[in-house]
Amino acid sequence: MNWAVIMAGGSGERFWPLSRRAQPKQLQAIVGRSTMIQETVARLRPLVPKSRMVVVTNTVQVREVRRQLPDIGSVLAEPVGRNTAPCVAWAATWISRRDANAVMAVVPADSWIGDVARYRRVVREALQLAAREPVLITVGIAPQSPHTGYGYIEVGAPLRGRFYRAARFVEKPDRATAEEYVASGRYRWNAGMFVWSAKTILAAFERHQPQMLAAIQRIRDGRSLRRIYPKLEKISVDYAIMEKADNVVVATGDFPWDDVGDWAAVARHWPRDDTGNAVRGEVVTVGAQDCVLMSQPGHVVAALGVSGLVVVHTKDATLVCRKEDSQRVREVVQRLASDRRKIRYV
Amino acid sequence: MNWAVIMAGGSGERFWPLSRRAQPKQLQAIVGRSTMIQETVARLRPLVPKSRMVVVTNTVQVREVRRQLPDIGSVLAEPVGRNTAPCVAWAATWISRRDANAVMAVVPADSWIGDVARYRRVVREALQLAAREPVLITVGIAPQSPHTGYGYIEVGAPLRGRFYRAARFVEKPDRATAEEYVASGRYRWNAGMFVWSAKTILAAFERHQPQMLAAIQRIRDGRSLRRIYPKLEKISVDYAIMEKADNVVVATGDFPWDDVGDWAAVARHWPRDDTGNAVRGEVVTVGAQDCVLMSQPGHVVAALGVSGLVVVHTKDATLVCRKEDSQRVREVVQRLASDRRKIRYV
Repeated sequence: MNWAVIMAGGSGERFWPLSRRAQPKQLQAIVGRSTMIQETVARLRPLVPKSRMVVVTNTVQVREVRRQLPDIGSVLAEPVGRNTAPCVAWAATWISRRDANAVMAVVPADSWIGDVARYRRVVREALQLAAREPVLITVGIAPQSPHTGYGYIEVGAPLRGRFYRAARFVEKPDRATAEEYVASGRYRWNAGMFVWSAKTILAAFERHQPQMLAAIQRIRDGRSLRRIYPKLEKISVDYAIMEKADNVVVATGDFPWDDVGDWAAVARHWPRDDTGNAVRGEVVTVGAQDCVLMSQPGHVVAALGVSGLVVVHTKDATLVCRKEDSQRVREVVQRLASDRRKIRYV
Repeated sequence: MNWAVIMAGGSGERFWPLSRRAQPKQLQAIVGRSTMIQETVARLRPLVPKSRMVVVTNTVQVREVRRQLPDIGSVLAEPVGRNTAPCVAWAATWISRRDANAVMAVVPADSWIGDVARYRRVVREALQLAAREPVLITVGIAPQSPHTGYGYIEVGAPLRGRFYRAARFVEKPDRATAEEYVASGRYRWNAGMFVWSAKTILAAFERHQPQMLAAIQRIRDGRSLRRIYPKLEKISVDYAIMEKADNVVVATGDFPWDDVGDWAAVARHWPRDDTGNAVRGEVVTVGAQDCVLMSQPGHVVAALGVSGLVVVHTKDATLVCRKEDSQRVREVVQRLASDRRKIRYV
C-alpha cells in the first residue's frame, strides 16, 4: 500500500521571528493560507489516505503538529534532530512493521509547489514504479533558473518517460556552473523528495548504513528511543544512501518548486505592491522599493525610502536585515539563544 | 515678577511612531528619563516658581500636559496651532493682566540642554536685564558645529558680558556658509528662547502686529478664543517681531543645546553600543552599525547587517527609514492620516 512520510523536524531559524522553536516554518503559513505542513498533506491526499501518513517531527513541535493535523495517521517525534538519514530509516522501519509491502513517498513539510496536479502525477508515477522495481527514486525538478542555492542531480541513461538513472549528485554550484547545468538539460534541482518501497530503502540502509539501521531497529518504546536516537550519526539521506547506491532513479518534476529557504525567497510568493515590495499584513510604504515587509493585525509597519530590506514584525520581535543577508538570520537566533534574558524570543 | 512661558504646541510628526498627536515629542522621554516638558520645567524651577509657569499647548494635548505637570500654574490651550507669534502675544496678554510688571522667559518645551547650571545663569542674567531695560532678548547658542539645520543670528555691537545687539537673523545656511559663520565668531544658533518684560513684548506687538494684538486682547473666554484664534496669522515670533524690532538683544548661550529635531538627532544623545548604534529598549544587533534602534518592553528589535538605519518599534507601529530620511517621517504620518483605515496609527 502507499504511505507518505512527511519530514517536519526543521527548526526554521532562518524564518525568525515568525518561526519559533515550537512553531517553525513548516507549521506557519509563510506562503499561502494554510500552514506549509497542512498544504503538504493536502497535496498528497489523493495519493495516500491520511491514516497512512506519518509525520516525523521533534518533541517540542509534536503538540502543534497534532493540533494542525488532527486526523493524521501517526506522528513520530525525534528526541533530537539527526538530519534525514535516521529519520528515513526510522520511518521505513516503523512502516514496514505495519505493512511489509509498503511503498513510501518521503517529502519535506516545507516546500512550495506551484502546480499540484503535475506534482501528483509525478508522485503517482513514482509510487507505481517503486511498487514494481527495487529502485530508489528521487524527484529532480527541471530547473527554472540557474539557482545557486540548490544542489543539483545529473541524470544518466533515460529509462522511460520522466525517469532516468541518476549519474551523480552535486553541491550548490557557482553561477557559471549553474548556467551550464541548466543549458545542458541534464541536471535537476535536488528537492529532497523520495519514493521507494520500504523493502528497497531498508535494503539500502542494510548495505550502506548497517550500524544505523541496526540501532534504529532496536527502538521499541520511548525509553529506547531517547537512549538510541542521540547516538545516531547526523547525516542526510543523500550522503548516507543516495550518493552510494547504484539503483537510484531520478523522476523529473515538471512543476514549479521552491524550498522557500529564507525571507528573501518569500518575496517570490507574496503579493507585490506597485514598487515591488512583497507585503503581508498592515504595511505603509513611502518611497520604499524591493522590500519584504510583514506586520501583524493591529500593528502597522512603515518603510520610508529604504530598498532591498526585510522587515518582519511579530508580537514580541521585529527583524530588520537586507534581503541578501536573509541566510544569516540564524545568527540572530543564535545570539538571542546565548543571552539568558533574551532566549525567550527564540 | 519672573514668569515662564513654555511653548508646547508642536505635533511632533517627525518622531512618529513614538510621538502621536495627543502625545507628541515634548510629552515623551525622547532623550533623558523624564519627558522633555518635565525637564524644561525642572530647568526653570529655581528661576520661576511653578505657580508662575504657563504652558501653551493645544486642546488635544492639554489633558496629558496636566497629567505630567500636576502642579503647573496655568495651561493655555490653543484651539488650533498658529505658530509662535500668536502664542507669545496671548501668553503675554494673559500674564500682564495678572502682573503688569511681569518679566517672562519664553522657551520651547522640547529642547535638550547639556549644562543646566550654565543655562540657568544665562536665563537669570537675561531676566535681570529685561527687568531693567526695554529690550527683546533672544538666547543665541554659541555654535558647536557648522550645523545646516538651524537658523543663525548675527550679533552686532557688544553691550556687556554675554549680551550683544542683534544685527540680523539668517535662515538655515549651506555648509560653506555655516562654516564661515562659525569661524567668524559673530553668529549664534537661533534656539527660539526669549526673555522680555510683558510691557516690552506687548509694545512690540502693538507696533509691528497691531491687528494680531487687538484680536488677542478680545479673547475673554473659551468661546471668544475658539472664534478669534483660527483667524490669526500663522507666523513665528521671529518673523512677526524679532526681525522687525530695533531693540533686539542676543544673550550668548554657552551651554550645549540641541533642538532634537528628528530620529537622527537622538543618536547624539542615546547610549551607543560598541558598533555605534544608538539603542533604547530591548535590542539585539549582529553586524549592524550606526543605527538608531528602539524597542518597547517585552519586544525585541533585531538588526542584522544594516547600517545607518532608524528602526523604532512601538506597541502598534514600527518605523524603518535611513537616518538621512529622518526629516521625511512626517510623510509617513501624512500617508497614514490620509487612509481611513490607518489614521488610528497617527
